[in-house]
Amino acid sequence: MGEARTQRSFFDQYLEKLRHVAEIIDLAPEAVEILSKPKRTIIVSLPLKMDNGKTRMFTAYRVQFNDARGPMKGGFRYHPDVNLDEVKTLAALMTLKTAVVNIPCGGAKGGIKCNPKEMSRRELEALTREYAKALAPFIGPDIDVPAPDVNTDAQVMAWFLDEYNKVVGKIVPSAVTGKPLSIGGSRGREGATGRGVFFIGLEAASKLNISLKNARVSIQGFGNVAFNAAKFFYEYGSKIVAVSDSRGGIYNPDGLNIYKVMEVKRKEGSVTKYSEAETISREDPLTVDCDVLIPAALERQITEKNADNVKAKMIIEGGKWSDNS
Amino acid sequence: MGEARTQRSFFDQYLEKLRHVAEIIDLAPEAVEILSKPKRTIIVSLPLKMDNGKTRMFTAYRVQFNDARGPMKGGFRYHPDVNLDEVKTLAALMTLKTAVVNIPCGGAKGGIKCNPKEMSRRELEALTREYAKALAPFIGPDIDVPAPDVNTDAQVMAWFLDEYNKVVGKIVPSAVTGKPLSIGGSRGREGATGRGVFFIGLEAASKLNISLKNARVSIQGFGNVAFNAAKFFYEYGSKIVAVSDSRGGIYNPDGLNIYKVMEVKRKEGSVTKYSEAETISREDPLTVDCDVLIPAALERQITEKNADNVKAKMIIEGGKWSDNS
Amino acid sequence: MGEARTQRSFFDQYLEKLRHVAEIIDLAPEAVEILSKPKRTIIVSLPLKMDNGKTRMFTAYRVQFNDARGPMKGGFRYHPDVNLDEVKTLAALMTLKTAVVNIPCGGAKGGIKCNPKEMSRRELEALTREYAKALAPFIGPDIDVPAPDVNTDAQVMAWFLDEYNKVVGKIVPSAVTGKPLSIGGSRGREGATGRGVFFIGLEAASKLNISLKNARVSIQGFGNVAFNAAKFFYEYGSKIVAVSDSRGGIYNPDGLNIYKVMEVKRKEGSVTKYSEAETISREDPLTVDCDVLIPAALERQITEKNADNVKAKMIIEGGKWSDNS
Amino acid sequence: MGEARTQRSFFDQYLEKLRHVAEIIDLAPEAVEILSKPKRTIIVSLPLKMDNGKTRMFTAYRVQFNDARGPMKGGFRYHPDVNLDEVKTLAALMTLKTAVVNIPCGGAKGGIKCNPKEMSRRELEALTREYAKALAPFIGPDIDVPAPDVNTDAQVMAWFLDEYNKVVGKIVPSAVTGKPLSIGGSRGREGATGRGVFFIGLEAASKLNISLKNARVSIQGFGNVAFNAAKFFYEYGSKIVAVSDSRGGIYNPDGLNIYKVMEVKRKEGSVTKYSEAETISREDPLTVDCDVLIPAALERQITEKNADNVKAKMIIEGGKWSDNS
Amino acid sequence: MGEARTQRSFFDQYLEKLRHVAEIIDLAPEAVEILSKPKRTIIVSLPLKMDNGKTRMFTAYRVQFNDARGPMKGGFRYHPDVNLDEVKTLAALMTLKTAVVNIPCGGAKGGIKCNPKEMSRRELEALTREYAKALAPFIGPDIDVPAPDVNTDAQVMAWFLDEYNKVVGKIVPSAVTGKPLSIGGSRGREGATGRGVFFIGLEAASKLNISLKNARVSIQGFGNVAFNAAKFFYEYGSKIVAVSDSRGGIYNPDGLNIYKVMEVKRKEGSVTKYSEAETISREDPLTVDCDVLIPAALERQITEKNADNVKAKMIIEGGKWSDNS
Amino acid sequence: MGEARTQRSFFDQYLEKLRHVAEIIDLAPEAVEILSKPKRTIIVSLPLKMDNGKTRMFTAYRVQFNDARGPMKGGFRYHPDVNLDEVKTLAALMTLKTAVVNIPCGGAKGGIKCNPKEMSRRELEALTREYAKALAPFIGPDIDVPAPDVNTDAQVMAWFLDEYNKVVGKIVPSAVTGKPLSIGGSRGREGATGRGVFFIGLEAASKLNISLKNARVSIQGFGNVAFNAAKFFYEYGSKIVAVSDSRGGIYNPDGLNIYKVMEVKRKEGSVTKYSEAETISREDPLTVDCDVLIPAALERQITEKNADNVKAKMIIEGGKWSDNS
Repeated sequence: MGEARTQRSFFDQYLEKLRHVAEIIDLAPEAVEILSKPKRTIIVSLPLKMDNGKTRMFTAYRVQFNDARGPMKGGFRYHPDVNLDEVKTLAALMTLKTAVVNIPCGGAKGGIKCNPKEMSRRELEALTREYAKALAPFIGPDIDVPAPDVNTDAQVMAWFLDEYNKVVGKIVPSAVTGKPLSIGGSRGREGATGRGVFFIGLEAASKLNISLKNARVSIQGFGNVAFNAAKFFYEYGSKIVAVSDSRGGIYNPDGLNIYKVMEVKRKEGSVTKYSEAETISREDPLTVDCDVLIPAALERQITEKNADNVKAKMIIEGGKWSDNS
Repeated sequence: MGEARTQRSFFDQYLEKLRHVAEIIDLAPEAVEILSKPKRTIIVSLPLKMDNGKTRMFTAYRVQFNDARGPMKGGFRYHPDVNLDEVKTLAALMTLKTAVVNIPCGGAKGGIKCNPKEMSRRELEALTREYAKALAPFIGPDIDVPAPDVNTDAQVMAWFLDEYNKVVGKIVPSAVTGKPLSIGGSRGREGATGRGVFFIGLEAASKLNISLKNARVSIQGFGNVAFNAAKFFYEYGSKIVAVSDSRGGIYNPDGLNIYKVMEVKRKEGSVTKYSEAETISREDPLTVDCDVLIPAALERQITEKNADNVKAKMIIEGGKWSDNS
Repeated sequence: MGEARTQRSFFDQYLEKLRHVAEIIDLAPEAVEILSKPKRTIIVSLPLKMDNGKTRMFTAYRVQFNDARGPMKGGFRYHPDVNLDEVKTLAALMTLKTAVVNIPCGGAKGGIKCNPKEMSRRELEALTREYAKALAPFIGPDIDVPAPDVNTDAQVMAWFLDEYNKVVGKIVPSAVTGKPLSIGGSRGREGATGRGVFFIGLEAASKLNISLKNARVSIQGFGNVAFNAAKFFYEYGSKIVAVSDSRGGIYNPDGLNIYKVMEVKRKEGSVTKYSEAETISREDPLTVDCDVLIPAALERQITEKNADNVKAKMIIEGGKWSDNS
Repeated sequence: MGEARTQRSFFDQYLEKLRHVAEIIDLAPEAVEILSKPKRTIIVSLPLKMDNGKTRMFTAYRVQFNDARGPMKGGFRYHPDVNLDEVKTLAALMTLKTAVVNIPCGGAKGGIKCNPKEMSRRELEALTREYAKALAPFIGPDIDVPAPDVNTDAQVMAWFLDEYNKVVGKIVPSAVTGKPLSIGGSRGREGATGRGVFFIGLEAASKLNISLKNARVSIQGFGNVAFNAAKFFYEYGSKIVAVSDSRGGIYNPDGLNIYKVMEVKRKEGSVTKYSEAETISREDPLTVDCDVLIPAALERQITEKNADNVKAKMIIEGGKWSDNS
Repeated sequence: MGEARTQRSFFDQYLEKLRHVAEIIDLAPEAVEILSKPKRTIIVSLPLKMDNGKTRMFTAYRVQFNDARGPMKGGFRYHPDVNLDEVKTLAALMTLKTAVVNIPCGGAKGGIKCNPKEMSRRELEALTREYAKALAPFIGPDIDVPAPDVNTDAQVMAWFLDEYNKVVGKIVPSAVTGKPLSIGGSRGREGATGRGVFFIGLEAASKLNISLKNARVSIQGFGNVAFNAAKFFYEYGSKIVAVSDSRGGIYNPDGLNIYKVMEVKRKEGSVTKYSEAETISREDPLTVDCDVLIPAALERQITEKNADNVKAKMIIEGGKWSDNS
Repeated sequence: MGEARTQRSFFDQYLEKLRHVAEIIDLAPEAVEILSKPKRTIIVSLPLKMDNGKTRMFTAYRVQFNDARGPMKGGFRYHPDVNLDEVKTLAALMTLKTAVVNIPCGGAKGGIKCNPKEMSRRELEALTREYAKALAPFIGPDIDVPAPDVNTDAQVMAWFLDEYNKVVGKIVPSAVTGKPLSIGGSRGREGATGRGVFFIGLEAASKLNISLKNARVSIQGFGNVAFNAAKFFYEYGSKIVAVSDSRGGIYNPDGLNIYKVMEVKRKEGSVTKYSEAETISREDPLTVDCDVLIPAALERQITEKNADNVKAKMIIEGGKWSDNS
């Protein structure tokens, strides 16, 4: 969402890639035409009475890109940078993602331009409920099924679903995914992305004839994705040699006990408080000696400057391209 | 829709005026906030199998700006220049218009980016029906009532309504205005804008202490608005001294028989074929000697260059600002 | 519904007339095509637990012929002879009738094949309610508005409407006409057909330069239509010289007091008990000396055999062609 | 709502009167049976997050007593004493009221057990919106049309309607009455009850051969009903000799200028500040010398104790029996 | 439903227990608040034309207590003692039951105050269909799924479902449970409660280190629950030493062949006609010598008076607390 | 659909068989009554603008015979001979078929009277979409689920479903069967009828103590059913000794390689071009020496004339009785 983007939009980048791929796979021009435009875009202004008593209008989006393969899937995010270009592009990518893994779903995406960090819990709930009411006619298990995304956790989905249920007068847990287990959420969803990172690693290792047992794995990050990926590698027998968080990183060539690292982080606020490791910088995990490197913090960490220093034989991108923009 | 607009959007112009007026009338900041954002914007891509067998996707809009005062009203147009900025602004203006004349309605606007002049009748009908199906859940006598606008005549409204009726399984003539009389259209609608021009003239004349009887009226244009305005002035007793069309103008200081002019235009294609008048240029009606000037062709005809030559005591803008852009 | 009809159907007769008229008025072939086929025909089998405990299935119809001009209007009848050919034809005729009198409505017709004279009140109510439930999705003020017809009086309409209201969960008096005044019926509806007969007479008389004042009027029949027609003529000053019912007729060249005749009929069961008149046969009103003849009993009473004996200057068909077949 | 009522319920009182009247007018037992039970009762628990952050559950009612004559009408109130017995009885009375004045409506009533005086504006709005969402499937122009009642003013109706509109996705001003003029409310509604008091007085006076011109009118109360009644009598030419509010009353045998009294009350908080009158007690208007007495404060003011002191020839009950309980 | 209850309502008892448990498990006050009030209560008056031609109004209930965990489940009963207090309490208990066994459902309950033993089959069917129509908008697989209860068997559910299907215009077998197998009912449902009694017995026996093989089981009752429980114990190898019905009991210390007992009961009307056993009183099964006692007739059979005489080591309550009240 | 049928309708034949079977199995008269009449028949006239610019009306049917066992199943066909009698009878047969194989479904059938061989692809698509719009309120997973039949392949179902989805605003793949795999169709559906022929053969062979291994199978036809049946027998080890198409047949007592036969037919247009077999007539497969005969071309091929020449021990009717009429 930086300056470069104002020159060429995110969606233009998508279109360029689409056309490039279309040429390679000899895609019919009509298919390209269809994949170039969202089926339906809904933009609503949501009035919210702020805690200070004043009414503000928030702009919210839902782009339903394509449903040729089935009801649409896609998250919605709360962020000051949310805009039509971004939402439209992410909806297009969701269409491709669901098709690539061959689930009978199309792609959509949504979001509200707001800064959840400056809003109270009550404001967030009220805004979410207004969003649910505004989208209710366009959402549902047979139409479009929202999921959480940046700044929209299980609690937000629960508010959204509760309001949706009120409007339609039914209990429809399948109207959203990513909801709390207690109201029908899926077990394992929280660690799903980390698990995916591991499975990709396993698959890639087998192609490269690398054994992940005892392989040295360095992970930049220790959030949800990073921790869960770490857990899977650890349980499989890999050595997690480095992890990091916003305060810095830690390194131990003999492997870290990631459960203990997590305990320390929970109690003391950072992995750097873990004693059985050497403290390193936030960027060092990218370049420590290792077999597998997993950048799972912010996107675009490997650059022209540090690329030559990466020593891993295999890199698995742990962050979602779309989510860190 | 020219080049100047790319520098400052149509909607930005609207916002600037809104804020200017708000200051004058001391409008509450919350009202300004609400009038600054459309309540709901719907953008859909409509697939159309062209006569040549190929499928094309057309982008169609409906901006429902505000419904605080009642169901929304606003036309939809078919034009290659239709875009979100324009539709949004016109929807905002409709909101103000319905409020100014105090009818219990809000404002909306729509359109399809297409070139009806290059499309067959079958294509236009099929596209209109797709548009109706796509908008059906958002339209209706209690929600938003479309009307014809640029390139969307009574026949287009009939197609739209017929398809709407099929989808909702009911006969709902009140779902659109501007439909043919035979299916419930309003008598007098065709000449309504011209009649409005005349009433404004009458009102203005009374304030200026001018009598319209025998007043000399010059009209640039001879389309629907121009002709109907001409008719009302003519029947009232004014002298229509000049009219014009795309091929040129005619002038007769003793007054034209506008019915005969119309007959000539119908038969021979231009007012310039009318024999009982002097032939002038397309722009001359603006500057001929007259009491009342009605520019009813394209907008923005009186410019820095010709303003000093205008001799009329009273100018009535006959074209819709919004429609001629 | 006699034997002749098995050779050429009622609807074929309609088609023949339609084509004949189409030629005369040069109707577009597409319009003929559209007027030749009902838009939608619904046939349902209604289960009814009879008073004897057994379940019987009744066949019920609703033909919605055409709604190009607006929501459809048309009665439904209960009769052993109800069949698709008849219902379809009557629906077509309703389409023409509403168009002729230029009300914004289309035409429909319905009915249940049953013998109401052999059914208990409870059975009739239960059957009507099943019919209402089966038709509920196709009926309504914006779709098709049933009315009473043969054997379906205001009470039947009230049952139908009550059940309709239950199914849709709303109070919708405008879903049927011919309902009791207490739940929104129209004043004057009961006598409407008779009133129509009188107005036609008045109109015709003016064209023929006949005065209805003191004109001698003979009426075959004394049912709802006949009595109400009689009343209007009587109040206007005509002399009602003959009336009849299924048991015979009465004749008085000086005119009958039709209110007293009705009183006698109510009390004693037949007009023939009226003392201040000569008793005649059921057919005699057709041929008595009179100025105006109104056949208002069964249809097709004037035949090759008696036509020469008709003495009236003016004949007004009081029965509905469609209803007596 | 006092102690006496726990012994015999409000609804039992209604039933007793119903049966009493039924006997007098020889009402069919089945009609009595139907008028003895509400058609539908809905009780909902509404969760509300209070300003202190805690969630409370409020009990809300809607009793839809009878819709045989049309969609139901009836207010809803916010009061700590709201309970099923009261709501049910008032709904029954609404059924009788609409029938008596012969409008095509049935009767209903609703309310929330809450203390609006202890709630913030935000809490009231949120509670009203929850109520609207809970009732939405049962409410509407064709079903049941709520109105304001005790503690539910035009603003409350506007909140209710706005939320109703959001849930149904339409603009339905006819779903409630008593809304602000700006969104479709009726002119004259505010003064309607006072106007009714006057018309009843006029009608009664004519029967008693009393002239209201110069008649001395004493009014207990000076709220909405009392003031509007006063205005009508005053404009008609009656002398308003006494009015009162919760702080006391005023008396002037030559008549009060009620506009000036109102001005004083608005500015200084009580009619007792009005200088051109004698100050009396709150109860004195009941017993001052006058021709017409209008008790329009709390109900049940004329009791065994003061009845003998009432000097008016005519008493018009200005308060609603139902509303002051 | 005896006298004691008029002093403290059934729901008050529930509330007391709820608060008691809440204290023990430290339940959040807001959860207690929510579990103290039904989400939605619907009371309707159903008109029924009795076989004697008269119309009676029946009061019917549906209390939808809580749906936080999913669509609600709960039976409906036909009984003269049905009242709001009872239905509300049973709906609360259903909420707890579904939560305890962790199925994704909430709790509801319903019923009609009527005496099915004094009603004809036709009346019962008509009443059930009216109930279905009245509840249709509130019922469904995603809202609330009724089940049979006291006096509402599979046939009643079939009538209810058939009418529900007619109103919604769909075939929705999942809208009720307890329907006949032929229209989608579940196998094994009829014997489910008896099976549950046995499983509880098995579980309890294992904790008490008792073997049910050859254990002597005494059962008060021989209805659906009692017989099915008997069957499961019998097949497992237990000795059923006593059973009873409303006419008395039978006892055989060597065990009864319960299939033969059932055959006798079917043919001759009572278990007491069974020859291979000693005849005892209706209450004797409670106190005969046995290892397991199953009271499965009416509730509250073991009292202060007979408790000391119970010889069983284990008692399994076979009746539902809620159903026998 | 030949001449014989005009004398006795297809449905009369069905009724005769129904009554015959009812007698044998002692079916309750009420069940016979119910199985004698379709629950709901819908006939619609679909306007279609032909490629030549003219509008034609097509008559389309849907007979929903019975849904007592669940949502209805049944195909729809496009054929010039489609008529109510046929559609009604096939709907009745579908009711019996679904019941016989005990799936929780009822029976329906539909069709459009049209000649798809004389219509363009665009016309077929437009007609199908009109049909879908007209049937949308009566169709759905819980009501009636259409399937392809004569001249209605997977592409037609896809058009129908796409239009249905547009009208209902949801993605409902379960609204039709027989759709393409890519939008949710079932694998194996294409070969299902042929597979059924084989399974019936297997079952019959086991009863007759015939081994299908090496059994000589003669098949009249080589369309979808014939080819798929041939494939299953071939893979099982039977010898396919004869097949045929509209141009003639082929015979090889040692067995044909049916894959090669198919390859030849695809390339050269007829099985008769296959070189490794003797050419025979179109009818010869019925009478060649074989163990199993499968008539899978048109129905009614074995007649009084050739019946004596049939040599097979076992005949399996491969064509659908209903489809070839």
